[in-house]
Amino acid sequence: MSAARKLCMIPGPIEFHEDVLSAMGTPATSHVDPLFVPVFGETIEMVRKVVLSKDAQPFITAGSGTLGWDMMVNVIEEGDEVLVLNTGYFGDHFADCLSTYGAKITHLRAEVGSRPSIDALKKALSEKKYKMVTVTHVDTSTGVLSDIKSIAETVKAASPETLVVVDGVCSVGSEEIQFDAWGLDVVITGSQKGLGVPPGLSIVVVSQHTLNVFKNRQSPIRSYYSNWNKWLPVMTAYESRKPAYFATPAVQLIYALHTSLKQITALPIEQRVNKHREVASNLRQTLKSLGLKTVAQSDDVAANGMTAVWLPEGVELPQLVPALAGKGVQIAGGLHKDCATKYFRIGHMGISVMEDDRQHITKVVDALKSSLTELGYKA
Amino acid sequence: MSAARKLCMIPGPIEFHEDVLSAMGTPATSHVDPLFVPVFGETIEMVRKVVLSKDAQPFITAGSGTLGWDMMVNVIEEGDEVLVLNTGYFGDHFADCLSTYGAKITHLRAEVGSRPSIDALKKALSEKKYKMVTVTHVDTSTGVLSDIKSIAETVKAASPETLVVVDGVCSVGSEEIQFDAWGLDVVITGSQKGLGVPPGLSIVVVSQHTLNVFKNRQSPIRSYYSNWNKWLPVMTAYESRKPAYFATPAVQLIYALHTSLKQITALPIEQRVNKHREVASNLRQTLKSLGLKTVAQSDDVAANGMTAVWLPEGVELPQLVPALAGKGVQIAGGLHKDCATKYFRIGHMGISVMEDDRQHITKVVDALKSSLTELGYKA
Repeated sequence: MSAARKLCMIPGPIEFHEDVLSAMGTPATSHVDPLFVPVFGETIEMVRKVVLSKDAQPFITAGSGTLGWDMMVNVIEEGDEVLVLNTGYFGDHFADCLSTYGAKITHLRAEVGSRPSIDALKKALSEKKYKMVTVTHVDTSTGVLSDIKSIAETVKAASPETLVVVDGVCSVGSEEIQFDAWGLDVVITGSQKGLGVPPGLSIVVVSQHTLNVFKNRQSPIRSYYSNWNKWLPVMTAYESRKPAYFATPAVQLIYALHTSLKQITALPIEQRVNKHREVASNLRQTLKSLGLKTVAQSDDVAANGMTAVWLPEGVELPQLVPALAGKGVQIAGGLHKDCATKYFRIGHMGISVMEDDRQHITKVVDALKSSLTELGYKA
Repeated sequence: MSAARKLCMIPGPIEFHEDVLSAMGTPATSHVDPLFVPVFGETIEMVRKVVLSKDAQPFITAGSGTLGWDMMVNVIEEGDEVLVLNTGYFGDHFADCLSTYGAKITHLRAEVGSRPSIDALKKALSEKKYKMVTVTHVDTSTGVLSDIKSIAETVKAASPETLVVVDGVCSVGSEEIQFDAWGLDVVITGSQKGLGVPPGLSIVVVSQHTLNVFKNRQSPIRSYYSNWNKWLPVMTAYESRKPAYFATPAVQLIYALHTSLKQITALPIEQRVNKHREVASNLRQTLKSLGLKTVAQSDDVAANGMTAVWLPEGVELPQLVPALAGKGVQIAGGLHKDCATKYFRIGHMGISVMEDDRQHITKVVDALKSSLTELGYKA
């Protein structure tokens, strides 16, 4: 099978470092073994570092990134008003999740490729009191980057107690996140994107304010598996280098996350973010020079860890994706329900960005150029 | 670290085959890649084979074994009566989970080391109509094996529509399970025990009858992440060799499960179960010859994939576990709330049982014997 493996340049899962893959193969180790306990504890601490927080509480659990949405069950009660800053597919689905737990949703939508303006947000906040505002930091369906710093500032100015919840599944590890400085309340992510670890871990970081809202809720928590009353003692125990049990942790994935976070935190996070910005900017320049347009309508709303690109006239997705695959590069099709067949997506996160020697970006650009030429497209 | 690694002889995670660990390190592969799609599809089919079913529906999702309990949210509605055949720690916690979703629980408890009798079950069934009866096939806290064949027969004779739900976290892959022949409705497991794969996958197998109960429920499903309406189309798609998306699957863990299931299904399941029986029986004989008593009160209630053993007079858990660890063997302490400090547990599942050449059982027995001697115990 390995002969046919392609360079995985989709917006997650991304390419993994060899040391991370080795850690995935860590031989059987008990979840309460003194070897594993400090590894889990350090991993929790390093997650906090990546989002630049001093005292936020990480939850690292076996599950997909989607499980992070589910954990909002801990702070949502029947009838709670939630404003969803909706930039695509993931806004819709996060809202669906929150509704399941009793939230009343108001969508603030933007057209494909853009994001709701801060003025629109101010207006929405003036019309209703919200328990929570959610934002998809990078909408993986469109490659649109939200300005979570300004959003948090605006929300907190209007209503300091409103929870600012960031879906950072496609941003943690590749975009700038200053959890404490920007006053964020929740950042949700998964292992398989900017953190550079195979899929299977849900990672949620919550502020002390969020924990207070959770502790002071009036109604019972509607979930068993996602219930922080079960997980909080486990996280606290491991961080103080003691084992605890609610459900068996995904030991090997946590070894892998530990390995990747050691690499990530070895550099200042700012440097990592800047490198992602630089590579994304260069890629957009290259695309422009090929006559291609990004789905993100301008550079300042374009993500730094992925890019969605409109297909040029005459080139179809079922031609382009296999053409690149034939050259050993996997890219992704569209995902937004209104236009999924009209654009493609490239991921540029983690080692593909940070380690120039691998030439991953060059490979995807070269494969794209020659595929387009083969399909009759002329820049 | 590897120098200090111990042979992991706890009741899960168990020791993993080298090929399974290699599969954990599969390089980045998209969850919709044509390489991965058939791997996931075949994995679903092989899970069905392991429990000897023709048409049951497996759900394989990123999460701990505990997530399988949570999935019962799909068939539980407010006020549903559930009978829990309780043999220890896991009966209590499964009941806690079901209560979260509105179930009214009746416990049928047995003293530590035994299981509720079939007569007691008959009596309970005659007193109330139950939507669901749950049983922990092997209670990992006590090593007690339940007779799920007789239980299912008894339940179905009294009430054919009552769901028979088996917590098989510590039994699938090591104990006899005839899903179709015995009329089971749900079998819940995780990856890290008898299936021989690192922790991080929840595996739930449900009968067509269960799917009907799910489809005909009156009230909305109270969970987002555990909702079968989200997962069923994904499982169906992958089994028909097409990709689908709800949440990113744990690709590497599924490669690992595929590898392990290929090994497991290469032999008739009966042969695997018999080998586990034989090794467990021999181990109990050895323990008896050392003057030790199992927590399971008799051989016919003793699990075949793990054994819980009372500490002999004068030997304490904080002495025994480290003594074995010093000899390179990890065993587990107790877990039952009434007597956790009074017994220890040994896991004997998977390659430790099936591959004699590894001499895992010999190693744990030798380490136990010499540790006991060092601690002043005389058989």
